[in-house]
Amino acid sequence: MVSILQAVDLIVAQSKNFGCQAVSIDDSLNRVLAEDVCVDRDYPPFNRSAMDGYAVVSSDFNIGQAVKLQLTEKLLAGGFSKSKVVSGTCIKIMTGAPVPAGADAVVRLEDTVENNNIVEFVVTTVKVKQNIALQAEDAKSSDLIISKNSILDARAIPVLAVLGKAKVKVFNQPKVAVVSTGNEIVSVESAILPHQIRDSNSYSIKNFLKKYAINDVTAIHIADDKQRLITEIEKLLDNDILILSGGVSKGDADYVPEVLMSLGVKQIFHRVQIKPGAPLWFGVMPNGGVVFGLPGNPVSVQVAVKVFIEPFIRACFGMETIKPLLLSIFTDKKKKTKLDEYFPCKIVIKNNVTGIVSNRMNGSGDIAATLGSDGIALHPSSMDMIHENMILEFYPW
Amino acid sequence: MVSILQAVDLIVAQSKNFGCQAVSIDDSLNRVLAEDVCVDRDYPPFNRSAMDGYAVVSSDFNIGQAVKLQLTEKLLAGGFSKSKVVSGTCIKIMTGAPVPAGADAVVRLEDTVENNNIVEFVVTTVKVKQNIALQAEDAKSSDLIISKNSILDARAIPVLAVLGKAKVKVFNQPKVAVVSTGNEIVSVESAILPHQIRDSNSYSIKNFLKKYAINDVTAIHIADDKQRLITEIEKLLDNDILILSGGVSKGDADYVPEVLMSLGVKQIFHRVQIKPGAPLWFGVMPNGGVVFGLPGNPVSVQVAVKVFIEPFIRACFGMETIKPLLLSIFTDKKKKTKLDEYFPCKIVIKNNVTGIVSNRMNGSGDIAATLGSDGIALHPSSMDMIHENMILEFYPW
Repeated sequence: MVSILQAVDLIVAQSKNFGCQAVSIDDSLNRVLAEDVCVDRDYPPFNRSAMDGYAVVSSDFNIGQAVKLQLTEKLLAGGFSKSKVVSGTCIKIMTGAPVPAGADAVVRLEDTVENNNIVEFVVTTVKVKQNIALQAEDAKSSDLIISKNSILDARAIPVLAVLGKAKVKVFNQPKVAVVSTGNEIVSVESAILPHQIRDSNSYSIKNFLKKYAINDVTAIHIADDKQRLITEIEKLLDNDILILSGGVSKGDADYVPEVLMSLGVKQIFHRVQIKPGAPLWFGVMPNGGVVFGLPGNPVSVQVAVKVFIEPFIRACFGMETIKPLLLSIFTDKKKKTKLDEYFPCKIVIKNNVTGIVSNRMNGSGDIAATLGSDGIALHPSSMDMIHENMILEFYPW
Repeated sequence: MVSILQAVDLIVAQSKNFGCQAVSIDDSLNRVLAEDVCVDRDYPPFNRSAMDGYAVVSSDFNIGQAVKLQLTEKLLAGGFSKSKVVSGTCIKIMTGAPVPAGADAVVRLEDTVENNNIVEFVVTTVKVKQNIALQAEDAKSSDLIISKNSILDARAIPVLAVLGKAKVKVFNQPKVAVVSTGNEIVSVESAILPHQIRDSNSYSIKNFLKKYAINDVTAIHIADDKQRLITEIEKLLDNDILILSGGVSKGDADYVPEVLMSLGVKQIFHRVQIKPGAPLWFGVMPNGGVVFGLPGNPVSVQVAVKVFIEPFIRACFGMETIKPLLLSIFTDKKKKTKLDEYFPCKIVIKNNVTGIVSNRMNGSGDIAATLGSDGIALHPSSMDMIHENMILEFYPW
């Protein structure tokens, strides 16, 4: 039996690079960058007007009285002027347009009155660089802007677009198969007998993986029949990640570890000091892919995916380790075991403090235990009781 | 000019139901439930063993000495027994199996030694209901378990699976079009001139909408040409939501409001007391759909999507209003305007406190301002300075 930290280290040690491919920017959401993205030119590419107004020479102002200037040209965004603004003149300019040569400030439209190509300025004070976004102040040509191994979220993708990255190099997705084992398991479409239960674990796992745009996952069910387990699992040994649920504990029909080992899967560890989910089995397939043998209970599966499988995927993509938030818990909680315990929580606000409360949970078999939760908190092994307002580690889903 | 609260109220007042449809559970991630989901039977459906072990009569124990019982049967999960456990006997049972009649406790395998159908129990104390998940303790038949208007996340979908909801009724997605306006805007694939900039706003908007599984969005670009705007926007008046960026301020080429009104779009408001993004225009199309005219700067667009468009979408789906987190800010910040200001922030941990720091931002045109941020915080209009450790409203993206 290993600790959670040992288990994660042993798992992450098996991480590998899945290679990379170029994808269209339109298909890049939640993919992980396999290249450093650098800036193609300065941003702004020129001194850009930040307002609709007039480009002026600031030294024409600040003389203690209203100023009138000759209007020489009108620019739109997308246009640009070859003229120079000289003292006594101004050029009308729209937000986003390049500030013409000679001008060193923009006075906004609201502070002006234009009449017969004479612009009267209602303000008397004008600062140098006022309302101008200076060339390269946002990003400098060829600087690194998005690092390799970053996930492409809805903030990163628009930056790729600005830089003209119509195609972007991302890591390939792993080939993943999910196997629900157990005689009691039937599919979601099945009529059901009283002693049976429908498969939910494959839905937990598949939908969690979509967080990393891992969308094409094979999912099958195999009964607790040793020969059928061998036959069916053998066909799945070409995967990068094989995730089984059920059949890894000490029960009479828990054939998964012996079946895997008979197929040449090397056991790295079995059992972890965690609740729920202690019977976790982890091994390496002959092809170098990994096998997670998860316990069968629904909460155990969801916790194991978060605590063990997500760090593996992130390591393969070269991503940073997830660091927990530290939040106050607003409920008490007792613990009977000496294990680290994870439990589902919801984020709430109480007396102007953002904290967490635990979900109602009747053990790891409770089908509704994580419903509406925002993540899992850690009840550390060393602590029998959690008291209200203690600070806990919280991992958002 | 309206306040943010007034603007959101006026926007939400135009929300409408898009109708509903049945989708496969496999396609339901991030869709919004259009039906109440009730429990199909008790969970557990029977008194279920929570351990691999032996089903016993607890009154055989607690006599101050080790107990030996006759083993009468072995059950697997997925199996069930018609026999009764009577005093002096036990039935071997696996996690998940129904506890046989007569038994009122399960002793785990680890605490027993089995030999020739005699089971010796190493523990002497056994409590009634020990290691038994009682029928209906997780969920009771016909109780409401997931309410209409809930978003189907990776925790809700497994529950649908357990209940046998292979198809689920969800709200239809709105028909959405996104229009980037501006002569200076070119597409991501285009070669670019110094005074031009590539479209990024359509990428911000489209990828944000994927949060609600709104994946099929029309996106086009139209130059600042009044006649072309009229011709192209007219074709888009059959949408439920039309989102334009650029062309709504006071510039000479800001034709969007007059073009929309010439096409029969009724203005609800123009300009909001917010920074960035004050020039926001909002109206209603002849078909009852809504038009958001956003300013053109990238940060303005991302803030407007979060502050104005997301509440509209959630209202249409009947979802709860988003409540901000309350978090300490670890940076000072000055504000020059009298407006409510939103600024991008990253969640960090400092001295064991979870709080936020502001991203570097050179105004609303800064292409990199939101990169790596976790959401936006509000610098309230009433406050000139934000000081370190003040509690702010924070909206995760």
